[in-house]
Amino acid sequence: MSFYSGLKRVLIGESLPTSAHAEERLSNAAALAVLSSDALSSVAYATEEILLVLVAAGTGALSWSLPIAIAIIALLVIVILSYRQTIRAYPQGGGSYIVARENLGLYPGLVAGASLMIDYILTVTVSISAGTAALTSAVPQLTPYTVELCVLFIFLLMVANLRGVKESGQLFMIPTYTFIACIFVLIGIGYYRQAVAPVPHIYPEVRITENVSLFFILRAFSAGCTALTGVEAISDGVLAFKRPEWKNARLTLLWMGAILGTMFMGITELAYTYHIVPEEGQTVVSLLGREILGEGPFYYFIQVATLLVLLLAANTSFADFPRLCYFLARDGFLPRQLAILGDRLVYSNGIIFLSVASAILVVIFKGQVNAIIPLYAVGVFTSFTLSQAGMVRRWLNEKTSGWQASALMNGLGAIATLVVLGVIVSTKFLLGAWLVVVAIPLVVCLFLSINSHYKYVAERLSIQEIAPRSYVPRPKGDIVTHPAIVVVGQLHRGTVEALDYARSIADEIVALHVDLGSTNREKLQQRWQELEADIPLVIVDSPYRSVSRPIVQFVEEFEARHPGALSTVIIPAFVTRNWWEGLLHNQTTLFLKVALRAKKSNRVVTTVRYYL
Amino acid sequence: MSFYSGLKRVLIGESLPTSAHAEERLSNAAALAVLSSDALSSVAYATEEILLVLVAAGTGALSWSLPIAIAIIALLVIVILSYRQTIRAYPQGGGSYIVARENLGLYPGLVAGASLMIDYILTVTVSISAGTAALTSAVPQLTPYTVELCVLFIFLLMVANLRGVKESGQLFMIPTYTFIACIFVLIGIGYYRQAVAPVPHIYPEVRITENVSLFFILRAFSAGCTALTGVEAISDGVLAFKRPEWKNARLTLLWMGAILGTMFMGITELAYTYHIVPEEGQTVVSLLGREILGEGPFYYFIQVATLLVLLLAANTSFADFPRLCYFLARDGFLPRQLAILGDRLVYSNGIIFLSVASAILVVIFKGQVNAIIPLYAVGVFTSFTLSQAGMVRRWLNEKTSGWQASALMNGLGAIATLVVLGVIVSTKFLLGAWLVVVAIPLVVCLFLSINSHYKYVAERLSIQEIAPRSYVPRPKGDIVTHPAIVVVGQLHRGTVEALDYARSIADEIVALHVDLGSTNREKLQQRWQELEADIPLVIVDSPYRSVSRPIVQFVEEFEARHPGALSTVIIPAFVTRNWWEGLLHNQTTLFLKVALRAKKSNRVVTTVRYYL
Repeated sequence: MSFYSGLKRVLIGESLPTSAHAEERLSNAAALAVLSSDALSSVAYATEEILLVLVAAGTGALSWSLPIAIAIIALLVIVILSYRQTIRAYPQGGGSYIVARENLGLYPGLVAGASLMIDYILTVTVSISAGTAALTSAVPQLTPYTVELCVLFIFLLMVANLRGVKESGQLFMIPTYTFIACIFVLIGIGYYRQAVAPVPHIYPEVRITENVSLFFILRAFSAGCTALTGVEAISDGVLAFKRPEWKNARLTLLWMGAILGTMFMGITELAYTYHIVPEEGQTVVSLLGREILGEGPFYYFIQVATLLVLLLAANTSFADFPRLCYFLARDGFLPRQLAILGDRLVYSNGIIFLSVASAILVVIFKGQVNAIIPLYAVGVFTSFTLSQAGMVRRWLNEKTSGWQASALMNGLGAIATLVVLGVIVSTKFLLGAWLVVVAIPLVVCLFLSINSHYKYVAERLSIQEIAPRSYVPRPKGDIVTHPAIVVVGQLHRGTVEALDYARSIADEIVALHVDLGSTNREKLQQRWQELEADIPLVIVDSPYRSVSRPIVQFVEEFEARHPGALSTVIIPAFVTRNWWEGLLHNQTTLFLKVALRAKKSNRVVTTVRYYL
Repeated sequence: MSFYSGLKRVLIGESLPTSAHAEERLSNAAALAVLSSDALSSVAYATEEILLVLVAAGTGALSWSLPIAIAIIALLVIVILSYRQTIRAYPQGGGSYIVARENLGLYPGLVAGASLMIDYILTVTVSISAGTAALTSAVPQLTPYTVELCVLFIFLLMVANLRGVKESGQLFMIPTYTFIACIFVLIGIGYYRQAVAPVPHIYPEVRITENVSLFFILRAFSAGCTALTGVEAISDGVLAFKRPEWKNARLTLLWMGAILGTMFMGITELAYTYHIVPEEGQTVVSLLGREILGEGPFYYFIQVATLLVLLLAANTSFADFPRLCYFLARDGFLPRQLAILGDRLVYSNGIIFLSVASAILVVIFKGQVNAIIPLYAVGVFTSFTLSQAGMVRRWLNEKTSGWQASALMNGLGAIATLVVLGVIVSTKFLLGAWLVVVAIPLVVCLFLSINSHYKYVAERLSIQEIAPRSYVPRPKGDIVTHPAIVVVGQLHRGTVEALDYARSIADEIVALHVDLGSTNREKLQQRWQELEADIPLVIVDSPYRSVSRPIVQFVEEFEARHPGALSTVIIPAFVTRNWWEGLLHNQTTLFLKVALRAKKSNRVVTTVRYYL
């Protein structure tokens, strides 16, 4: 067992047979934990992103956070009502790529696929960065190691997922419900303390760099829309629910919306009440915790719960991204390798791709949540819009019972998310959204060029119009059916074996030696006559000391004399015991192989290896 | 033509035929220029190295430079008289490796070879560093770029030598004789000015860190012994002279000794007379030039001449090192690749090896001459000693006419150089000589292990005891003589072609398909019956989704049923138009080949390539 395979076994574990593939059905409570950690955990950063925009216009502008939060809640209600229709129509699970491709056609489907791929990568980047921020807020000594911590967390998630984390309901419920409980208790204590003994909070001095304008308010709204990321997860995973799947999924989606809305509104309202102003190195939730609870054990508990739920949120991308890549690869838009089940029944290549891409983004953006946020929402809302629009098209085509109400809901959702997408792109364009606006069409072009390559290969390899094959006994006599050339450097055991092999496969054999100027021809001829007299030995001169050129030329002339026949060029090679011993020998075999593999389809180059 | 080959053609030029190899015969004056630049150029740094040691004991100690120089001149006389005997005995050219190996045996020969290899690398390092120092002394603005300049010069020498610099007498005479003339004129003007209008020179204050002791004087002497490096070159290159070669070579050696001795003594004496104290950033020759000539055009001319002659000195290693490597590779002590003539009839690999090794040393020692000097003389004097001792042994064995005098001269040379070697190692050990003392035995061990590898290979490949081969017409009927297995992924044009190939070389064929769980068996079987009904198709399951494992297992079982037969495993592969398109396809072929190339000598793995 090599070092590599040993390390792999320790990290990843033994191979699993394909038959071990099975799906677990989840109770509603467990499904909420498994599918909603991405959505729920966004309250850990959404409020902060709003405040970070507003504070640039002074502490007075912070009161705008309340109407903005209400607008976002309204948007949340629309999106959730809209996705309830999707669940009903796609009880097998309706991701944006599938819905858009089925109902809107190829290109919208690919745009949705590209948006989702970018979205999943950014979900990992944002969630890991926000989780690390929760940790460094509690333990500021760790702040200088932000990027290292982020990369470490991504690495751990990658290894866990390569091993194959079962989306175990039991295990996942703990951090998710702990986080929900923490936030509700924090909000409760916050209101209680404010009601019993209101403390007058004074805003600190802040530097004012912006004026309040409609554009400015819309920018803060855009930042807060990240609260909606992950809402679509339940509609993708309908099959994980117990029967009747779609009804349970719809109910769970409602609950999720209610919990998310309450937590988001509560934190935003409390942040305003407690006059929280975002600080370098402290998240808003951490500031709220310190303000309301002091630096007691419960404060640290909240930070740890926040970190854990954000790791879970990142983990959902590790389940969804490889599955999306599998769909795209299966349809020929991504490399086939992304559709291969790894040793542990997971799409290993997709997991590794996601880890590397998100780690690169973490390093580029130095693990700063608010630097990545402008990129984040573009992909999410693009796929929201395409998915809802696809549903509208579906209702209009199918006209099943109650289609009018559903079409209305989805239409409302499509329009609302399209408008928000426009707002996000226009207000955040220069801050980073342009990167995603540029990336989505580029990724779609990549999809299309990969697809056209696979189509080209399939066409060239097609066996249509090929006549049935059959074994024709080789006619003996003067008609040569399989000619072979054996390249001879020196006459040693490896050469002797190669010549024996040639005798076993071919009925016309020529041995070829290239004299670079240092061959003792007489001795070679004499030994040849002693051992291999039945095969003619041709010696060619190479005045320019090239080995390949005269051989290629000879082979071409030889082939010209055998038109239509498949011929074999046999190169003897000996194999040393270690790779470094190989360095002591010429690599002529390698160069020769490359040179002989010109675009000639009826020439087979075979290396006969002699093991020392 | 690829980018690489285009670049190579511009830098190196077109290939030359082997027949263009020819030797130029040189007049004595030209031979002096070609063969002595290494020796003569050492006056550019030898005096400085002596002064650098002495100044540590104060300016008063600098007067010791005169007796030290006289001792070195005496040593020079002994070495030259000794080498005159070598020239007589080896009119074909007697390098240390050849003389020591022929007369003292294998191990002394290898020690001489190792010493010489190190010596040649250090000659490049020291000469290039000293040449750059001559340049930066004249143009101090270039001092920060010392290392870059050194590496640039090495690169230029490498390219020039890969093109194949003819050791053209005409061309090489210009810088060598210009340098000699410059130094003589400098010495002449120096004495003249001192005689006509003696200027009182006052020594600057220097920090005293050492006391004058015997050990200290010997250390200064060791440093000055670098003046002798390169003296052996004429005896290596006797064949370059016109007839009678050995007489001309002996005469030229005498002349060279006289010129070298005069220049070295003159510079050392003048440096003392003009009270020169080594300075940071200024060579002693540069200081002398500024003192005697001022900063006029002649001063700059001398510096440029010094740089050029030192580049020539480095260039002699570019001729000698690859030749030595060729001898060692031919005898099986270095990798064979070092014995291959390149496109331009030079031993390209040796040239590249020398360039890389000396560039690494330049970078490590930051291009500082006096940091490298302690390493330099060890290799030189080791090979001197072994060469002279070998000659003594030869005279004692052969007893040709006048052998007594020759043996006495060579014996004197061997003893003198051995004593000096002891002095050098003991006085410079901690300053860097230990590196070479450690390196020489390591290199000898490397020689021996390379040699034992080649012997092992030759023994394993020996064709002794192999019976004569002959072509036995293949018996048709129920005896299978050549079985083949064709690995089938999908049934496409590439597979069809591989099966056709199998039919042409084998008389028992089995097709093997591995089902990873996603094969449509019915469809495959049906199409198989339509097209390839004469070849049985075996489908094996792979519950762990490994492609290689079930194939290797099947092949092994198949081979066990055909004991003694050579069998072929045929893998169809299609070749994409570009390498990046290859990334879109599984690399299964590659992994499979590696897995099938277990240590089984009677299995041939053949890829049948289908070009799209």
